Amino acid sequence: MSGEKSLKVALLGCGTVGAQVARILIEDSGALAARSGASLELTGIAVRNLEAKRDVQLDQQLFTTDANALIDGADVVIELLGGMEPAGEYISRALARGASVITGNKALIAARGAELNALAAASGAQLRYEAAVAGAIPILRPIADSLAGDHITKVMGIVNGTTNFILDAMDTTGAAFDDVLAEAQALGYAEADPTADVGGHDAAAKAAILASLAFHTTVSSDQVHTEGITEVTAADVSAAAAAGYVIKLLAIAEKSEQGISVRVYPALVNRNHPLATVHGAFNAVFVQAQNAGDLMFYGAGAGGNATASAVMGDVVAVTRQLAAGAPLPNGSADAAASLMDFSAITTRYWIGLTVSDEPGVLARIAAIFGEHGVSIESMNQQAALPDAAAQLRILTHQGTEAALSSTVAALTALDAVDSVLSVMRVEGN
Amino acid sequence: MSGEKSLKVALLGCGTVGAQVARILIEDSGALAARSGASLELTGIAVRNLEAKRDVQLDQQLFTTDANALIDGADVVIELLGGMEPAGEYISRALARGASVITGNKALIAARGAELNALAAASGAQLRYEAAVAGAIPILRPIADSLAGDHITKVMGIVNGTTNFILDAMDTTGAAFDDVLAEAQALGYAEADPTADVGGHDAAAKAAILASLAFHTTVSSDQVHTEGITEVTAADVSAAAAAGYVIKLLAIAEKSEQGISVRVYPALVNRNHPLATVHGAFNAVFVQAQNAGDLMFYGAGAGGNATASAVMGDVVAVTRQLAAGAPLPNGSADAAASLMDFSAITTRYWIGLTVSDEPGVLARIAAIFGEHGVSIESMNQQAALPDAAAQLRILTHQGTEAALSSTVAALTALDAVDSVLSVMRVEGN
Repeated sequence: MSGEKSLKVALLGCGTVGAQVARILIEDSGALAARSGASLELTGIAVRNLEAKRDVQLDQQLFTTDANALIDGADVVIELLGGMEPAGEYISRALARGASVITGNKALIAARGAELNALAAASGAQLRYEAAVAGAIPILRPIADSLAGDHITKVMGIVNGTTNFILDAMDTTGAAFDDVLAEAQALGYAEADPTADVGGHDAAAKAAILASLAFHTTVSSDQVHTEGITEVTAADVSAAAAAGYVIKLLAIAEKSEQGISVRVYPALVNRNHPLATVHGAFNAVFVQAQNAGDLMFYGAGAGGNATASAVMGDVVAVTRQLAAGAPLPNGSADAAASLMDFSAITTRYWIGLTVSDEPGVLARIAAIFGEHGVSIESMNQQAALPDAAAQLRILTHQGTEAALSSTVAALTALDAVDSVLSVMRVEGN
Repeated sequence: MSGEKSLKVALLGCGTVGAQVARILIEDSGALAARSGASLELTGIAVRNLEAKRDVQLDQQLFTTDANALIDGADVVIELLGGMEPAGEYISRALARGASVITGNKALIAARGAELNALAAASGAQLRYEAAVAGAIPILRPIADSLAGDHITKVMGIVNGTTNFILDAMDTTGAAFDDVLAEAQALGYAEADPTADVGGHDAAAKAAILASLAFHTTVSSDQVHTEGITEVTAADVSAAAAAGYVIKLLAIAEKSEQGISVRVYPALVNRNHPLATVHGAFNAVFVQAQNAGDLMFYGAGAGGNATASAVMGDVVAVTRQLAAGAPLPNGSADAAASLMDFSAITTRYWIGLTVSDEPGVLARIAAIFGEHGVSIESMNQQAALPDAAAQLRILTHQGTEAALSSTVAALTALDAVDSVLSVMRVEGN
């Protein structure tokens, strides 16, 4: 089968993932040809600095700094540079020429996915980006293809390994956020500047991509309500644990009669929920569909080999279509999404307060919930502190974000409330 | 988009799954056309007995007993009759005509998959059967497509909901197999004749399909080493629990340098393993691949709606290819698999014995393991029974099935061994 057709493959970038993709393209060429119906020739690897690649165990002749020339001679372009530019310029150039593109660039797809998909559709090229979300886990294709005959109502994912590593370590060891972050940085699980991860921005890009595919629309990352984990305290984690919950940073895309909501925030997840069992830097995506019910996809969210597996799955998919001679149209998207206002989403709150330990306080607090139409599922008073303030943890039933946040505002204004320890949402019932 | 092309769909069978598929084809025709690029017209539903369908909430005009006429007028045939015949005859007829076929018929695919795939390839038709394994969980396409650029080394699945319901209930309640089976039958989780489930035969068919796709070969269900769960006792379950394990019926397909092994048996799974968290009638498939590492796919394994979701995903896939005008070739299979002899597979044993409570017994038992080249990971002696026999639970390190089973034979022959309580394998490290 391998002699039938030969396709020229250009690789842009040779970092952790790129080096593995190059290795697989070379070492595994026989199996790839058998699986895809065409042989793949790696024609070159575009890098910024040739000197920096002297130690890489690949034929040095492959490296070039002229990305444009490489792109212009390719049938398939694999972009693994990351970042907005020049990656965006290169991908546009390839698609405009009719070359198919595989990328793992979540930031770019989340910001400019609609434009790039349109460019691909116009030239008959394919654009695939399985590696952009949840590393090795096959999740975009199951959502876009396997569930295409169903209606997805909710996608809820642990899609950032760094923050899951941190939250899991806080849960396991009781340590504080800053200490665990430092440990994660020492182990290589967190970057020197961890803002994109701990601030929730990386998860927001992935949430935008998941929402776009799940709901056949276009959501960009700046439409995603985003909260990070920097304010999660050791006390939050241990109080959640005592109540049977674990705190996870969730990327949520939800479709209801009220509309589409896409959001990222740390939330309490019941320990019985499948997402609660996701430890360390692993990722998992929980999907609810009208007919399929609850599904979960679990695996490694990062790492050179794991991410390369997702890239190579896309390479085989693109090659099969090119070998068959009639590429499928890219999935049709309905109109761009107009998202629900965040204040209209429905969620549950878990509120930690310190209150004066005096008669009538609980009644006054309960009254405030009632006034805002929020009902309480449970209220736990912990041992009074030495200064005679008692600690309360209140779990609400479902309410709108607006009702819940105005409840918290009213509680904060109450004389009997000394301080609001934490306000966190609860997901996954 | 829906006006572009119209395809005639024939449905064979109108049971739990078929009725849901018919409902979705009718109610959801707009969304299906938008997703797939062609409109789908349900032209008829072949049933054995028209009278039996009088109460079904579908246009009675759709029902026919003439399956062949329906097939001969169809572009796409959905077979949901189950069983070997007449399902096999109908599918062959459709594929020979060039009509594409979607089926959930695991027994038929596991027995005659290679022949039917060849028939499809010859006529340019598509044959898809995502619903045959693990209900709603997208697992066959991720294995065949998403992981096509990787090398799968092991697939290990809980693919039979009935047996997982039974084993989970035994684990949770401590009840005996027969009592839980009766309860499962009362709840509709087990059939009146539960042989196919509790004997492991249903799981064996699924293991054969998983192995064929994962290893690009042909494995039929009669090649699968199959053991059921009828001999799992409440004592096994509680002793396993005490040691930190849970007993699951696993369908295992493994590829090593020694060859391919496909097997179904109840095995101990460590409670930290993702498969241990699969409760009730849920299914999950754990996949190990060279680059992707460990993946798990989790969801509902049965039920009309859930299985219909998988069927409809295949319907959209087939329709997209037909709308694009150039179907992809079905995945290429290498030569039919010659499987490893079961005695050559490597596993770990967990052995329960009652032994005379007298000096030197443990040394004699340990010596037998040494003589067979099997090393012991742990040996736990439980409180001596009233009749002065002690109960031993021995966990071995890795050994071949041949070495492990001859160790058990030698133990059985030993005077000091009163009885072998149980022998079970341990999987998933």
